[in-house]
Amino acid sequence: MAALPALERLSTNKTFEGELNKYKFKSSALGDLDAQFNLFIPPAAAQRNVPLLTYLAGLTCTEDNGAQKGNFLKTASAEGIAILFPDTSPRGAGAPHETDSWDFGVGAGFYLNATNPEYSKNYNMLTHVTTELPQVMEAAGLPIDWSRQSIFGHSMGGHGALTIYLASETKQYRSASAFSPISNPSKCPWGEKAFNGYLKNGVEEGKQFYDATELISKRTDPIHILIDYGTSDAFYKQEQLLPENFLKAARDAGYDEFQVRVRHHEGYDHSYYFISTFASDHVHFHANFLKA
Amino acid sequence: MAALPALERLSTNKTFEGELNKYKFKSSALGDLDAQFNLFIPPAAAQRNVPLLTYLAGLTCTEDNGAQKGNFLKTASAEGIAILFPDTSPRGAGAPHETDSWDFGVGAGFYLNATNPEYSKNYNMLTHVTTELPQVMEAAGLPIDWSRQSIFGHSMGGHGALTIYLASETKQYRSASAFSPISNPSKCPWGEKAFNGYLKNGVEEGKQFYDATELISKRTDPIHILIDYGTSDAFYKQEQLLPENFLKAARDAGYDEFQVRVRHHEGYDHSYYFISTFASDHVHFHANFLKA
Repeated sequence: MAALPALERLSTNKTFEGELNKYKFKSSALGDLDAQFNLFIPPAAAQRNVPLLTYLAGLTCTEDNGAQKGNFLKTASAEGIAILFPDTSPRGAGAPHETDSWDFGVGAGFYLNATNPEYSKNYNMLTHVTTELPQVMEAAGLPIDWSRQSIFGHSMGGHGALTIYLASETKQYRSASAFSPISNPSKCPWGEKAFNGYLKNGVEEGKQFYDATELISKRTDPIHILIDYGTSDAFYKQEQLLPENFLKAARDAGYDEFQVRVRHHEGYDHSYYFISTFASDHVHFHANFLKA
Repeated sequence: MAALPALERLSTNKTFEGELNKYKFKSSALGDLDAQFNLFIPPAAAQRNVPLLTYLAGLTCTEDNGAQKGNFLKTASAEGIAILFPDTSPRGAGAPHETDSWDFGVGAGFYLNATNPEYSKNYNMLTHVTTELPQVMEAAGLPIDWSRQSIFGHSMGGHGALTIYLASETKQYRSASAFSPISNPSKCPWGEKAFNGYLKNGVEEGKQFYDATELISKRTDPIHILIDYGTSDAFYKQEQLLPENFLKAARDAGYDEFQVRVRHHEGYDHSYYFISTFASDHVHFHANFLKA
């Protein structure tokens, strides 16, 4: 393996007695393009390595949206949990059609590894998030307890969190949660477009490896999942999210509400105004497992 | 007086059991340009008219920054306080040099009424914030108790909050607070540029009407002010903010720390990561007076 790339710190902001740091490095998973991420380090890290919660953002977002608008940091500071905010896609790959629309390509990496040769050099957000970022951060000596990780996300990032958690054979993550996740992507327009674009065998391949509703049907071991969505979410109404499909598959697989909890919230929508309202619930949910 | 303009609601988002609504109307104070604002209405408004806290944002911002990143809404919801987020300048006036730089013109209205004829048709953010917005909102029947208002802001908006509060002869506002305010604008480059641009008699006119440090020297009645700033704030270090000047003038005028409290925070900077950390303190400070 080649030497790990150096992390360049682009900025640091003190917040809730901790630090929000923005880093850049040359990402081999993304075809040697520059990649950026934010990392919140709570004040507890001065005493000990802390657990890590990874937040995956949704379509059109960057590493900044969750850090700036998510309302996670106060609770993370109090609980002594670090939060990693990756970007949502490679930037500047120059791949076909990557800037033609907001729901495919730049800002829309779907947290998978592309197998279509037009995208497979750069669009490998799965490896970037689950393997490369932890390796690079560990090599940089950041104060993380790597045996304690969980993952959550919003919309496309909720899809990412659920699928990464459910597909993980290494049990890298202790728990997963999602706001308004794309829960059954092989049955919705966003997912079909992503799978047909990034994957050699299209929706069939996506259904096998990257569909939370499909993946949970194959699990039998203990799992810890929380999902929140709003009933006034326009994308929920357009059937892009399909959380009921996921819930049914979870119950059919034998998981009860202490293993897979799906909550709907009257009148809430898809925005960060919704996320921020329930943000501390999610951090507390993960703290149960990260600090067990 | 002409009939008040109609409010058009552009969007609504449920958040913390309340509503964040974005409105547009034709602003006569701003020369008949369209103006936008956000208004957070807490759930308590279903039972009674609620107090109003006005948040003035800083240079380059819009009505969205405080609403999205300020971290005010959770506490405002719990306390039953509405928050008004105005814009920071007129948009589309076409006045000279209004888009040449980020610290003058668009996004930089300085919460004054221009007397330089090149700007006086449009750049009247003082009237817009203190008179026009309350009139338009009241005419629209929004559930505000207009006898209970306070004001706060960040940077240029902290300057706005302090000067509006200190210059108010009508005692429209019960309390004022500021994050990293421009506290003595007639002695810093941002203030000098604004006053020389917007005001016929330049810095002398600004010093008389729009300088918090000058204004507090003339007050003797009970006042309620809280200021927070960070010692790692680059603009503080560049002497754009000068909070020590304001503090000295306040103490010289006989105000103690229960009347004018100025806190500095080690390592914090000028960003919303700083504001969000102390956001609930400010809402609680104003609640003391708004709910008295």
